Amino acid sequence: MPFALHSRALPTATSNQQEDALAIASALAGQLASTAVARDRAGGHAQQEREWIRASGLLTLSIPVEFGGQGADWSLVFQVIRLLAKADSALAHVFAFHHLQLAGIQLYGNAQQQRRLLAATVEQKFFWGNALNPLDKRTTATRTDGGYILNGIKSFSSGSVGAEWLTISAWDEQTQSALIAAVPTTQKGISVQADWDAFGQKQTDSGNVHFENVFLPVDLVLQAPATLPTAQATLRSQVAQLIMTNLYLGIGLGAFDAARQYTQEQARAWFAAGVEKATDDPFIQHRYGELWLLLRPAVALADQAAASLEKAFRQGPLVTAETRGELAIAVAEAKCLAHRAGIEVSSQMFELTGARSTSARYGYDRFWRNVRVHTLHDPIDYKLRDLGRYVLNGSLPEPTAYS
Amino acid sequence: MPFALHSRALPTATSNQQEDALAIASALAGQLASTAVARDRAGGHAQQEREWIRASGLLTLSIPVEFGGQGADWSLVFQVIRLLAKADSALAHVFAFHHLQLAGIQLYGNAQQQRRLLAATVEQKFFWGNALNPLDKRTTATRTDGGYILNGIKSFSSGSVGAEWLTISAWDEQTQSALIAAVPTTQKGISVQADWDAFGQKQTDSGNVHFENVFLPVDLVLQAPATLPTAQATLRSQVAQLIMTNLYLGIGLGAFDAARQYTQEQARAWFAAGVEKATDDPFIQHRYGELWLLLRPAVALADQAAASLEKAFRQGPLVTAETRGELAIAVAEAKCLAHRAGIEVSSQMFELTGARSTSARYGYDRFWRNVRVHTLHDPIDYKLRDLGRYVLNGSLPEPTAYS
Amino acid sequence: MPFALHSRALPTATSNQQEDALAIASALAGQLASTAVARDRAGGHAQQEREWIRASGLLTLSIPVEFGGQGADWSLVFQVIRLLAKADSALAHVFAFHHLQLAGIQLYGNAQQQRRLLAATVEQKFFWGNALNPLDKRTTATRTDGGYILNGIKSFSSGSVGAEWLTISAWDEQTQSALIAAVPTTQKGISVQADWDAFGQKQTDSGNVHFENVFLPVDLVLQAPATLPTAQATLRSQVAQLIMTNLYLGIGLGAFDAARQYTQEQARAWFAAGVEKATDDPFIQHRYGELWLLLRPAVALADQAAASLEKAFRQGPLVTAETRGELAIAVAEAKCLAHRAGIEVSSQMFELTGARSTSARYGYDRFWRNVRVHTLHDPIDYKLRDLGRYVLNGSLPEPTAYS
Amino acid sequence: MPFALHSRALPTATSNQQEDALAIASALAGQLASTAVARDRAGGHAQQEREWIRASGLLTLSIPVEFGGQGADWSLVFQVIRLLAKADSALAHVFAFHHLQLAGIQLYGNAQQQRRLLAATVEQKFFWGNALNPLDKRTTATRTDGGYILNGIKSFSSGSVGAEWLTISAWDEQTQSALIAAVPTTQKGISVQADWDAFGQKQTDSGNVHFENVFLPVDLVLQAPATLPTAQATLRSQVAQLIMTNLYLGIGLGAFDAARQYTQEQARAWFAAGVEKATDDPFIQHRYGELWLLLRPAVALADQAAASLEKAFRQGPLVTAETRGELAIAVAEAKCLAHRAGIEVSSQMFELTGARSTSARYGYDRFWRNVRVHTLHDPIDYKLRDLGRYVLNGSLPEPTAYS
Repeated sequence: MPFALHSRALPTATSNQQEDALAIASALAGQLASTAVARDRAGGHAQQEREWIRASGLLTLSIPVEFGGQGADWSLVFQVIRLLAKADSALAHVFAFHHLQLAGIQLYGNAQQQRRLLAATVEQKFFWGNALNPLDKRTTATRTDGGYILNGIKSFSSGSVGAEWLTISAWDEQTQSALIAAVPTTQKGISVQADWDAFGQKQTDSGNVHFENVFLPVDLVLQAPATLPTAQATLRSQVAQLIMTNLYLGIGLGAFDAARQYTQEQARAWFAAGVEKATDDPFIQHRYGELWLLLRPAVALADQAAASLEKAFRQGPLVTAETRGELAIAVAEAKCLAHRAGIEVSSQMFELTGARSTSARYGYDRFWRNVRVHTLHDPIDYKLRDLGRYVLNGSLPEPTAYS
Repeated sequence: MPFALHSRALPTATSNQQEDALAIASALAGQLASTAVARDRAGGHAQQEREWIRASGLLTLSIPVEFGGQGADWSLVFQVIRLLAKADSALAHVFAFHHLQLAGIQLYGNAQQQRRLLAATVEQKFFWGNALNPLDKRTTATRTDGGYILNGIKSFSSGSVGAEWLTISAWDEQTQSALIAAVPTTQKGISVQADWDAFGQKQTDSGNVHFENVFLPVDLVLQAPATLPTAQATLRSQVAQLIMTNLYLGIGLGAFDAARQYTQEQARAWFAAGVEKATDDPFIQHRYGELWLLLRPAVALADQAAASLEKAFRQGPLVTAETRGELAIAVAEAKCLAHRAGIEVSSQMFELTGARSTSARYGYDRFWRNVRVHTLHDPIDYKLRDLGRYVLNGSLPEPTAYS
Repeated sequence: MPFALHSRALPTATSNQQEDALAIASALAGQLASTAVARDRAGGHAQQEREWIRASGLLTLSIPVEFGGQGADWSLVFQVIRLLAKADSALAHVFAFHHLQLAGIQLYGNAQQQRRLLAATVEQKFFWGNALNPLDKRTTATRTDGGYILNGIKSFSSGSVGAEWLTISAWDEQTQSALIAAVPTTQKGISVQADWDAFGQKQTDSGNVHFENVFLPVDLVLQAPATLPTAQATLRSQVAQLIMTNLYLGIGLGAFDAARQYTQEQARAWFAAGVEKATDDPFIQHRYGELWLLLRPAVALADQAAASLEKAFRQGPLVTAETRGELAIAVAEAKCLAHRAGIEVSSQMFELTGARSTSARYGYDRFWRNVRVHTLHDPIDYKLRDLGRYVLNGSLPEPTAYS
Repeated sequence: MPFALHSRALPTATSNQQEDALAIASALAGQLASTAVARDRAGGHAQQEREWIRASGLLTLSIPVEFGGQGADWSLVFQVIRLLAKADSALAHVFAFHHLQLAGIQLYGNAQQQRRLLAATVEQKFFWGNALNPLDKRTTATRTDGGYILNGIKSFSSGSVGAEWLTISAWDEQTQSALIAAVPTTQKGISVQADWDAFGQKQTDSGNVHFENVFLPVDLVLQAPATLPTAQATLRSQVAQLIMTNLYLGIGLGAFDAARQYTQEQARAWFAAGVEKATDDPFIQHRYGELWLLLRPAVALADQAAASLEKAFRQGPLVTAETRGELAIAVAEAKCLAHRAGIEVSSQMFELTGARSTSARYGYDRFWRNVRVHTLHDPIDYKLRDLGRYVLNGSLPEPTAYS
């Protein structure tokens, strides 16, 4: 490769830790890429690949050093996510949501819970999955001696199949509010179903989790019902939003690279172009410029937002609503750009590669399918509205699970 | 349905013939729709569905009355194509390309060939497939007694699997030019392979056709080698381009209808919207307006171009290069708009329907996959360049297989 | 000119009446064009040019034959408006709004009023101006013997300076509703101020009209207060909206023609383009294609909407709310496209003509300034919302002064 | 103002020097703003305002400390340019091009020339203007004793009226190449004409400079004819391109602020919106979000490019072609985004402010006119092509006066 496009999307100055983590992630991405097309076609649970991820050691990346983790900053975590997503955005999502749950424990959990759960995660190489969605009240928590009884269902539980632990939300009827907790998937009464069937992000293990009279001991409750969330606690949705952002970018960058490689190596010049190689076609050059101008700014803003998140995250309980709100704006800016870059690049790439590139053996449609499914997490129009309200009226986004 | 959106995309004044043909097509579309999602997933040859098409009688739609056909004008043929494409764009393509071959016979063939081949098509309910691509010189024709010997391969041969007849092009080395001919697929030495594996338009039977010492009698040669194509003959590519246009529009309209139905019946209002029903969300309403403004003008221009084609087609050998060139501009305008409408509507529809609509049971991603594959027939940038040359310099597009 | 781009935007089949009117309009446009740049710079009232318009006879174009007018259909009226707007969109607006007032008399006025006012307009070559804006309640009508007393002010009164007659709305406090009436500007107590100072459409004479104890006799009241407007009456806003549409298109087409002429005759090829003439630059050709694809569909839909308006207008009192509503949708479609085409072409044209074309002597910025000011008549986002509501929910736009 | 939008576009951590310079620039911007609308209308030379700039001391901002200047880095210089451009982009251009000439002296001139010219600029508060355009060969240099004789004309000579010194290029027929030199405008034979008449950027003093037998002593020749420019020397066009970028951004940010203030303070809610204040209209909020997403990434990339330029500039003669080329890519990315942000925000702002905001007393059209004229410096399509060539083929832009 005559130039390092890749490196342009990544900071150039890297510490040893960064270099190590990125090298490991890069090797892992290579492994995942080799079967990504076939696994996208097959769907289902990627047991072996999840073991590769576990074996890489990257599951401890975001865990503080004091608990035995690598203590990476969020910028590095997001770079790893992006790098993996270029190769396989479904497994990158599973990986990223593991770290989202760990972030939640740090943001909600008390010192004892953090120590217990994070240290165990390091020691036993746990995978964490997500069953936390405060808007969904179908799982209820009923107060009982020493804890709660959980009943109901959670949808879109990313990474739940194959995870040892979940963080969950459950609706407490008594206080008309949600609690947040950690539960082991081996707990009696929990069944995790591999019934996710979207047309993209197929191997995210985002199935339904069923709870049937599951006992939740009080010391696993990270946030009790009727607790007004602190500004710190509400940082979790910003971690989630920035994970989305970097997954979209990973997909977009992956599509861009695939297109570029195809244009360079396989595309034929159009007979009416009057050039010998497709890479010399002025319209093709121009369109590559246009697509790059979608990705490049999104990467720049995602990196800036990651630095802001890192800063706010480290402020811990001292983080203010204003800092949190401005972070949410920075994240929203990056997410909107990444959303559009992902969709446009993965759809327009074919204008640059042509009819023969649609053969199933390349599997290039997976980029659009993956980013199309994933960008529906929450509506972009409300993100734009939030941005508009801020720049027009100065009002910070209301902290929710999505903003 | 509270209003007839459908009818807005079609002329209101219909003759009996139109009414009959559209009613039959509508019923056929309903049949195809019932299994379209499953067949899109499976791919391969749709034998049964092709028999349904045959049984509908619509294979004779474009054949002149004098040869026993229905003598429909091109506007009606394109409306039927669009209607079928809303339900199943792959089989609509097979249907459309059947009529493209019949058009070719009328444009290239002499009176005797027309009578023989078109009458036989009516009587024996033949299906025609396409193996005509003058840019591809891999199939050669070698002069022999009473005809030619064909050898080689043709790719992208739409509708070839299951067709009784093909129109083909072959490269005559002696004259360094292409001939065009009709051949029965049962002819010794012809093998049609069901090896089309694109990620969309899966059931178009667009495989490779192999010719091994196939004898082509001279009376099946529609256009001899070294023949300067007449303006009339070059109308064929305009029929082809307008078929593309209407297939893209059918897919776009199908996607639009699917989204609308989903929004009305299944979508939930976003919690931050402050409305009860998704249909009352101002951003959703606005975006439906935007998408409609992509489809509506494309339909209007496609209909105008169809009327122009009909007029030029009926002029027969009297059609001038100028009329042909202005038609090509009208078709190019419509095709560019339809290309973009198809791509955008099928990709953006999900902003309006949300995460749950990506379940494989709806199969909504097929719209984007189908139109994405199909819009790569020839590059839109060169179509735009042709348009620009015309409006800027007044130069008509050079007649080719694509313009 | 090697080809008739102009004619592509106009129907080819023209009756004698059409030919005559278009020939007169074309000559008039030529006259207006010769001083358009200078008058745009100066602003103010174009007395001489208004006399040219009056002398052309086109002020009677839309008046029914029975009243001595030319009885042109609306399609022809809009073509004339578009043609004039290419040369001078401010005076085209004055001309168009004259016909809007005449349309109002036909839609609201009784038989006697129509005869009296329209016949007098023919005989005395009256110019009509607009002071009708039901949303503006600052002009009041107080019931008195034999009529009303008017007091107050009307803004944005297009064409009022130099008009012999106005149609006005006034707020009747007693019934809390608006009346609509015709008044001669010479009426005691009426003063018309030439205080319009927008940065575009400078010579539309859209100043403020002041009413000070103006007596309005009852026989000039076209629509009494507390009258529920009929579907027929509400057609007036569709005439107004389609006037806007055609003015935007006229500006867009004028900008396009100016750019094309400049590119052909004066633009230099960019040194890095590797071509000798700017007209051979592939990017310039491509962008002309893009801009044309904004104008062309807008013209097509505007023409279709004009035909629908003509039909509905001729139905008179028999026109139904549904027909009126569907017309409003057709007009909204065309208006949104024309809005965008006008803005984009007038702004992007400079990418095609370059730095030297910004010299004040060409006055090319007037296209953007004119269309920018004019497209703010009512917000496009609510037009898109109305379209979306219709295609999504089937609901027809509520009849207002803008929809 | 409830929040500091302004500060979001600027780095938060500022040194004292930055704070001082920005405070001075801010005060100066306030002065310029007070008459900007009137001066835009009048055009011509802004003598008094240029004296205010001179009095501010900011003319020495980019001059190294060793020559008595302030030694500001390029990031700060560009921030000052952007800040001034928000208020008055014509005078910001004059200011910026002064610093461009100073940059040229540092990049081309030898140590003695730098010392002499830069120290004199500090001491005597010189203003520098631009007459350097190597593509324009109309000014010739003829070798003579001790120097050259200059004859001819230079167009687009920004800032030349009222400047004490110019940097110029002249065509040496003997070597068929350009020389670059500094000349005092008081030199016999030089006449500067105030004949710039574009519809925007009116007060940039970008007239024609005439040379009639002007003697150019050899010690004022910064780059001799037939000199192959070093990578360092070619940095000048990157300074120029980044000046353009920041001027476009200043205009875009100025337009955005003007619109926001108008919407907050004067705009009325649309009657169909169902809200009381325009600031509560969801479509208005959404569109502000959209426009902000054009500006924000452009600012981010412009700031990154400025940091890269600073780094490359300080490498002096050690800068490599590769570093220079990658800088050119970073600048091109930022310039394309700024171009579009400027054009779109200044044109779309009116959708947010409405008809009444077009009154001449606001002068809001000046934003579009200014950015429209200025963005024609060199064609965006060739910038996009350069970007595409780089990301596709890895080829760095050829160093020219524009890339």
